[in-house]
Amino acid sequence: MTVETAMHRLREHFGGSFSARSADIDCHSQDESYFPRCPPDGVVYPNSTRDVVDCVRICADELCPVIPWGAGTSLEGHALAMTGGVTLDMSRMDRVLRVNHADLHVVVQPGITRKALAMELRDTGLFFPVDPGADATIGGMAATRASGTTAVRYGTLRDNVLALEVVLANGTVIRTGSSARKSASGYDLTALFVGSEGTLGIMTELTLRLYGQPESIRAASCAFNSVKDCVDAVITIIQLGIPIARLELVDATMIRGFRRWDSDFNMPEIPHLFMEFHGSPTATDEDVRQVEKITRDSGGQGFRWASRAEDRKTLWHVRHNAYYAAKALRPDCRVMTTDVCVPISRLAEAIDITLRELDSSPLAGPIVGHVGDGNFHITLLVDDTDPNEIARAKGIANRINDRALELGGTMTGEHGIGAGKLDFMRKEHGESWDVMAMIKQTLDPDNILNPGKVVRIANDGRPFPALPSSARSHDNRSV
Amino acid sequence: MTVETAMHRLREHFGGSFSARSADIDCHSQDESYFPRCPPDGVVYPNSTRDVVDCVRICADELCPVIPWGAGTSLEGHALAMTGGVTLDMSRMDRVLRVNHADLHVVVQPGITRKALAMELRDTGLFFPVDPGADATIGGMAATRASGTTAVRYGTLRDNVLALEVVLANGTVIRTGSSARKSASGYDLTALFVGSEGTLGIMTELTLRLYGQPESIRAASCAFNSVKDCVDAVITIIQLGIPIARLELVDATMIRGFRRWDSDFNMPEIPHLFMEFHGSPTATDEDVRQVEKITRDSGGQGFRWASRAEDRKTLWHVRHNAYYAAKALRPDCRVMTTDVCVPISRLAEAIDITLRELDSSPLAGPIVGHVGDGNFHITLLVDDTDPNEIARAKGIANRINDRALELGGTMTGEHGIGAGKLDFMRKEHGESWDVMAMIKQTLDPDNILNPGKVVRIANDGRPFPALPSSARSHDNRSV
Repeated sequence: MTVETAMHRLREHFGGSFSARSADIDCHSQDESYFPRCPPDGVVYPNSTRDVVDCVRICADELCPVIPWGAGTSLEGHALAMTGGVTLDMSRMDRVLRVNHADLHVVVQPGITRKALAMELRDTGLFFPVDPGADATIGGMAATRASGTTAVRYGTLRDNVLALEVVLANGTVIRTGSSARKSASGYDLTALFVGSEGTLGIMTELTLRLYGQPESIRAASCAFNSVKDCVDAVITIIQLGIPIARLELVDATMIRGFRRWDSDFNMPEIPHLFMEFHGSPTATDEDVRQVEKITRDSGGQGFRWASRAEDRKTLWHVRHNAYYAAKALRPDCRVMTTDVCVPISRLAEAIDITLRELDSSPLAGPIVGHVGDGNFHITLLVDDTDPNEIARAKGIANRINDRALELGGTMTGEHGIGAGKLDFMRKEHGESWDVMAMIKQTLDPDNILNPGKVVRIANDGRPFPALPSSARSHDNRSV
Repeated sequence: MTVETAMHRLREHFGGSFSARSADIDCHSQDESYFPRCPPDGVVYPNSTRDVVDCVRICADELCPVIPWGAGTSLEGHALAMTGGVTLDMSRMDRVLRVNHADLHVVVQPGITRKALAMELRDTGLFFPVDPGADATIGGMAATRASGTTAVRYGTLRDNVLALEVVLANGTVIRTGSSARKSASGYDLTALFVGSEGTLGIMTELTLRLYGQPESIRAASCAFNSVKDCVDAVITIIQLGIPIARLELVDATMIRGFRRWDSDFNMPEIPHLFMEFHGSPTATDEDVRQVEKITRDSGGQGFRWASRAEDRKTLWHVRHNAYYAAKALRPDCRVMTTDVCVPISRLAEAIDITLRELDSSPLAGPIVGHVGDGNFHITLLVDDTDPNEIARAKGIANRINDRALELGGTMTGEHGIGAGKLDFMRKEHGESWDVMAMIKQTLDPDNILNPGKVVRIANDGRPFPALPSSARSHDNRSV
């Protein structure tokens, strides 16, 4: 029962779908987080649920860790082989199995990316709304309970996965949920696996909710003199229940980053809201009218429309590339990202204290946020050769997390725990964290599924090495 | 370690908040299901989370079953003491702890009923939308993942519980979720407890989402010549994504029941849709226009408006009392209810086959349904002194359940499993049912929390008695 034997057996079984070549190992050693390289012992590229079952069974026999890999865009080390083992690269399981127009859902394999799914759906009149910055896989997004700019209207992966096929740690294949829109039938295993980060089972098929393309889409930006004014407008919009589809905060520093990154981008360097409205022409007209009034009352400087599809695309293109834009402000820096989410009434407070802290720090930290959800990110720009800077940035990030918990929120709205946020789990969840560990130990008693993520448990004589302290910081390419 | 010792200790500990008087035992022996009386050995009326902890600890010591009790309106025997033990009547824990206007949520104790909560919220401009027929407690509704007439727009309890306080089987108190609108922080324990029917823990505090009272509410009914025409209209409304707030099917037989039950009710005895629209005046105008056209195209006979609050109330009052109205068709009968939910594209098929089956049966079975969700109920009217009729009704119910599963749906959209639907769990969930049992055994290894519900597991030497066959049928007062 060794990892070596596992690799031997996997090679025998999978032939060309197994690799221990350095090229394959290398590109699965690092995700978009700041963790040091964690090379797996081998990589399996399954083509089917059967392949996943076979791989898991061999690894269960040999007590070898199995780490599912999507697009490698995790921001918290989710897909790293912290203790070696085999990386299960899901990229070949990337098909759309069925589009069900009548029921507004689609069945996909986990390896399809969100952009590839959008392409597949482009002629159907339907769309899947969830859009993290990265072109992540749907499996990875479900595993981390991801969201993006549209969650304020359409929800997160929690709200948009109807059913799953999952391979358990012993190789059993189960199905959770159904194609019905609701159910009261037993424990909600779908919700349990969504957000479990590959630690309870490996998703091999997902049924996702789709939505009709809105008849009218209108996007706009609005400038404000202060972040506080922006946030005041956001709070009113949300409290009035206006069904806005996107509501994003971009602060002055981030606008400066956008301008450096894209020379055609010419918004003034003051805080902005980026917005989008979906609905019938009448409904979007009404939403726009209401939101225009609210932004005016909060000191907004009038809407700047992006009515053509092309202009809309530019707006959201820069927003989705905030990571690169932030880096443009300090080339060669590393980015450390926070991801707190607070109740909407505490959003102004949470951002305000953070801004004051950033003001009194030499570090730059542009802010972007899915503020309609109460979720915002500080992208701290750090010289990672300077231990003082790293310590300072970590101090800021930790205080932001602490504050979010004090305000009744969570330290992660959408990026997940991975290995990067374990230190805050006890503080956020108290004894609920033990319940998570109990569930993990029940479903994966040998701790072979993505060990070292979400929960901390004894690993049957396979102790996790202490992470080097540099492994606690972050380098995130999409925030 | 006996139930007798447990009762003795509970009486000592709780004094007047414990009772083994026959009046208290009697009224906790039967819910609204058709199960035979199951008297608990005693009843505890907790006043606080502390009381729940103390009760659970004593029962854990003595291996005594603890069965949480809300309003006793379960349709599947959820709250019955199948193997004796103590009933934990939550009715004294019925307070609203905090209304948070700014964040649109409310923190309540589990024993408050949905109508009492509505009263508490009436001057706030906010409301909690979920409305099962019965005036159930919020704790009971969360435990069964209940829904009602508004789920088509506002979702079920799954979508509307943000956070929980839960007492586990060993007396540990945990908190799940947060007040933030979304989170990617670890396993979704809130979703795991919602719908777990008191088998994994006892909810002692719930944070619920609230919604702003819509500016405009418009209700209407529309008559059709056939159920098929009704359902065709429903399918189109849902597929177009019209945000209708209520969309209920009532068949001709049920209309006849309404007329018998309420002599002022004078709709023609043909199938109807009952509808409600929420939004701004402009938005509801637009929704109404669209839906009117759709119903016309499907052979609908024009809207009959219930624009005054009073008329609306009447419409939903009869709908919520469908159980009594059904019984009015055959006084002294028993009611056996089905609760399937199918993908919307299969709704016409599911109802059509069922109708043909009912037509060829001597049994009456009025139909009502939250058809916007794909969820419908057949209220079979049965003479329970006639074994042939009971067998016939069960045959119909079983075939309806089987068909729902074949069509990709679930056998229960909102009533839950309890003890009544255990026989269909394996068929619906396959090996996922074993995963549910594993979770149950982990969180409640001695099986003291509501034993005999949702899952079937060995009970540490305390085998469940086989249910008498009559216990498989149903008598539901609110459907």
